[in-house]
Amino acid sequence: MLYSKLFGKTNKKSKEYNSVNATLLQKGGFIDMVMAGVYTYLPLGLKVLTNIENIIREEMNTIAYEVLMPSLTPKTAWEQTKRLNTVDVLMKTSPANEAALEKNNSEYILNPTHEEVVTPLAQKYNLSYKDFPFAVYQIQSKFRNEPRVKSGLLRGREFRMKDLYSFHTSVDDFKEYYEKAKEVYMNVFKKLGLGDDTVITLASGGSFTEDFSHEFQTICESGEDTLFYVKSKDTYYNKEVAPSKAPRVEYTDKEIMSRKDVLGENIIGVQELADFLHIPVEKTTKTLIFETDKEEIVAAAVRGGYDISEDKLKKIVGCKTIKLASKEDVKRITKAEVGYAGVLNLPPEVKVFFDESTDNRMNFETGANRTHYHSINVNFGRDLPYPDKFYDFKVVKEGDMFPATDEVYKVFKASEVGNIFPLYTKFTASFDYTYKEQNGKEKPVYMGCYGIGSSRIMGVIVEKFHDEKGIVWPKSVAPFQVHLISIGKEEVEKKRGDQLYKDLKEKGVDVLYDDREVSPGEKFADADLIGIPVRLVVSKKTGDKVEYKERAGKETQLLSLEEVMKRI
Amino acid sequence: MLYSKLFGKTNKKSKEYNSVNATLLQKGGFIDMVMAGVYTYLPLGLKVLTNIENIIREEMNTIAYEVLMPSLTPKTAWEQTKRLNTVDVLMKTSPANEAALEKNNSEYILNPTHEEVVTPLAQKYNLSYKDFPFAVYQIQSKFRNEPRVKSGLLRGREFRMKDLYSFHTSVDDFKEYYEKAKEVYMNVFKKLGLGDDTVITLASGGSFTEDFSHEFQTICESGEDTLFYVKSKDTYYNKEVAPSKAPRVEYTDKEIMSRKDVLGENIIGVQELADFLHIPVEKTTKTLIFETDKEEIVAAAVRGGYDISEDKLKKIVGCKTIKLASKEDVKRITKAEVGYAGVLNLPPEVKVFFDESTDNRMNFETGANRTHYHSINVNFGRDLPYPDKFYDFKVVKEGDMFPATDEVYKVFKASEVGNIFPLYTKFTASFDYTYKEQNGKEKPVYMGCYGIGSSRIMGVIVEKFHDEKGIVWPKSVAPFQVHLISIGKEEVEKKRGDQLYKDLKEKGVDVLYDDREVSPGEKFADADLIGIPVRLVVSKKTGDKVEYKERAGKETQLLSLEEVMKRI
Repeated sequence: MLYSKLFGKTNKKSKEYNSVNATLLQKGGFIDMVMAGVYTYLPLGLKVLTNIENIIREEMNTIAYEVLMPSLTPKTAWEQTKRLNTVDVLMKTSPANEAALEKNNSEYILNPTHEEVVTPLAQKYNLSYKDFPFAVYQIQSKFRNEPRVKSGLLRGREFRMKDLYSFHTSVDDFKEYYEKAKEVYMNVFKKLGLGDDTVITLASGGSFTEDFSHEFQTICESGEDTLFYVKSKDTYYNKEVAPSKAPRVEYTDKEIMSRKDVLGENIIGVQELADFLHIPVEKTTKTLIFETDKEEIVAAAVRGGYDISEDKLKKIVGCKTIKLASKEDVKRITKAEVGYAGVLNLPPEVKVFFDESTDNRMNFETGANRTHYHSINVNFGRDLPYPDKFYDFKVVKEGDMFPATDEVYKVFKASEVGNIFPLYTKFTASFDYTYKEQNGKEKPVYMGCYGIGSSRIMGVIVEKFHDEKGIVWPKSVAPFQVHLISIGKEEVEKKRGDQLYKDLKEKGVDVLYDDREVSPGEKFADADLIGIPVRLVVSKKTGDKVEYKERAGKETQLLSLEEVMKRI
Repeated sequence: MLYSKLFGKTNKKSKEYNSVNATLLQKGGFIDMVMAGVYTYLPLGLKVLTNIENIIREEMNTIAYEVLMPSLTPKTAWEQTKRLNTVDVLMKTSPANEAALEKNNSEYILNPTHEEVVTPLAQKYNLSYKDFPFAVYQIQSKFRNEPRVKSGLLRGREFRMKDLYSFHTSVDDFKEYYEKAKEVYMNVFKKLGLGDDTVITLASGGSFTEDFSHEFQTICESGEDTLFYVKSKDTYYNKEVAPSKAPRVEYTDKEIMSRKDVLGENIIGVQELADFLHIPVEKTTKTLIFETDKEEIVAAAVRGGYDISEDKLKKIVGCKTIKLASKEDVKRITKAEVGYAGVLNLPPEVKVFFDESTDNRMNFETGANRTHYHSINVNFGRDLPYPDKFYDFKVVKEGDMFPATDEVYKVFKASEVGNIFPLYTKFTASFDYTYKEQNGKEKPVYMGCYGIGSSRIMGVIVEKFHDEKGIVWPKSVAPFQVHLISIGKEEVEKKRGDQLYKDLKEKGVDVLYDDREVSPGEKFADADLIGIPVRLVVSKKTGDKVEYKERAGKETQLLSLEEVMKRI
């Protein structure tokens, strides 16, 4: 392709965005922002996206059939799964003006995911045990009502995605397929050039199962997720689900001291409090009051320096949803302003849960349940009973241990590139989708879903493979194999470039030929910014040979066309 | 592919729809209706759609660069072109529930077409005369707020489309590209198997130009459009724009008779009136009262049996929009109930326009402008002045002539498969998109747009190529090259089928192998319904050979594998 003719060239004056991928992909002429989280793929960008999607398609074809479901769906389908009013990224369509309203006054759902379409579809076609197992997938644009979207292709209001759904007659059959899907996913990431750095991570399975879901996370410094790795088990946990044991704190305290309540007006943050009390942060205690969906009030206490994971806590409490109690409730229960809640003297109907981080401490602090007051030198066994049980409901942090082995986690930043999810009968039950056994009996259908964000992957690749000059595309997704540059203003040099372009094309090489009349410096800078794996230069001084340079390397070499071909 | 494993098989019990394509594509297991005008493409259907889109892509790549624009767009873009409140198929998105509303309370437009995206995009990249001409295209799902959609893939609320936009520094340059696009379009239709029956048709250019747009119409009995063909000029007109001259009527009247008003209570339809008055329909006159956007009232009269084309009339009157006057206005002007308007005695401020079909008549009828009364034996020159000018504002009908040559039109039913449209500066002016000439002067950018509905084409192909047994796919778009059937329950026959399947695949033939354990009758019926171009059968009686039959033909032949390969 001739760069002079290509629509959408480099735009080095394009502004710096919050994320590397948004900045480089727009400077490089790959994408163009229409509004936050919504992009046009320019010719170069669409080539990369298509390469990514074709790799995904090739692998998915080994385990599923490709279909294409619509984005519009009747509301009734979403009512049937009870998700119409609960999914907070859901968008609907309606007529945009009076004339449209008169024409067809209907609202439809714009799908962010397709369980509501694929489940009734499967139900229409496959009902006999003989039809199972089966799986379908699609690659298409999806829509999410995202609020602030600042990370380029990593999160979009409109984005590209592969979603696959599998259907089974038993949990075992589902699990077998699920494991197979993991392998196929890893093949995708290998082919994309992300294999070495992409790991399978345990993540939340959602509200309807105790099982984990599995995320495919690419280790990447600018990643928005944090992974906690247990070496002895070779297992990665997403921060949201990593079990945690707090490191022990060494105390200098020799003996149990007298408890007292200390006035510390408006001192609420744990660090501030620790400084004020001249105690280590680990001696402070954070107590929060929660309300459950069963309208119970519970108190939860963690060691200073930790946050409470509502996801972990609600499983321990045994409720569906949990949220911080209202100011009024906190006041009523603690008889103090918000900020002074503690574990002492709570009303008997309030059940108190202690995180394991609060164990093994002497002379610790807790809120006094009295405005502006803090109780210090508190001790289990004296000031309150030693808890029957300690739990783990804190948000894990760096330095924490995996409880079963006491290993300190290794921590990585990472970016999610795919996820797979056991759905069991969550959606098939909503649609009464059962199958007939050989003996005619109706049995539940089990289901899984499997996503890969293809546009997101394009963003992750840029976050991972770039340097200060621009993008460094892996070969498998690069928009072209070769970036050819001719230098020099004389006819003979131009001819040499044109000839090499023709030769390479004849040999089936996919070449971007920068045939513009601009300075060599501009051509080199653009080549680095665009990031095609191999740069070839012809000029007066290259003679019959070609200067060969890989984008990822530094070395340049003078090679014959034959030698170049061998390397490509 | 093994048919036994394929998701989405034939479904012969599926109901009969209003259109052949909806019925056969659903019975055949190609598509599945999610709601009216919204379909899932099942694996077989997606293969056909992809084949169609790849043919389009291949041809478009010769004249444009492929991009992918988003479906979501900010409202401001549509405000800028003043189309936000006028396009009656426009849909918008909004949060679907309270939780979504809290998260991001924003509305976006869901594009049915992309002038509002591509024009500012082009403006961002191409500003110098050196950057012109250029063109971009995309293939994607589009959304239209259609009311009743009953014709399968021919009209959808969500459908697949290729849209291309070209940009130019002069009208001449635009016209040159436009002609080139016509050729490329015809190549597409040739490759799709529609070349012989697809014609370029003149259609309305819209409100901003006197030029025609051009439709690509496939002649097809079930087509929803009507084409009027002028043989001597080898020109097709869409019904909406075909100029028309009414055939002369032979009269038996010998002399001008006395005009009189006849009581005909509630007799309003022209046929009913003609019967009542014992005159030919051609002697009746239909007079309608219109109101223009300039708030003028005009009367328009055509010969009985014709309808009035508002599109033609508004150009003649010289206004932007025209609509039937309100009941109240008609009463005020004609001093009669609606239905008795005529050309006599109208108030002087009402300008009366006569269609040429009202000329050359003696003793004709017209409404009496008096409730329940009809004036008969009316004559120009006696009862009202002979009009200065006769116009053509009737809707053309079969039997009419092309005015310039007096040839009677040949009339065809057809289905639109593409259209191309001169936009000139309509959109570039809205965005102030100008380019810089060599001398630095800013000049207007000219633009054209070019559409092909890929899913619609899938429907048109089925409408055109089917018989009573099912679909007959053209080779270029068929889901597979060969439909292989093995008959017989013995192991040896099954083995023969399996072996042939393997052999064909090894030779690179794309085969659908019906390996199910169902009756030969069911397999044959399914093969005919699915419509793959070549059917191969192996059974006990075929021995070493294979029974070869083309879907479009009747003959079966026993051939060797080698002979089969030659024919494929």
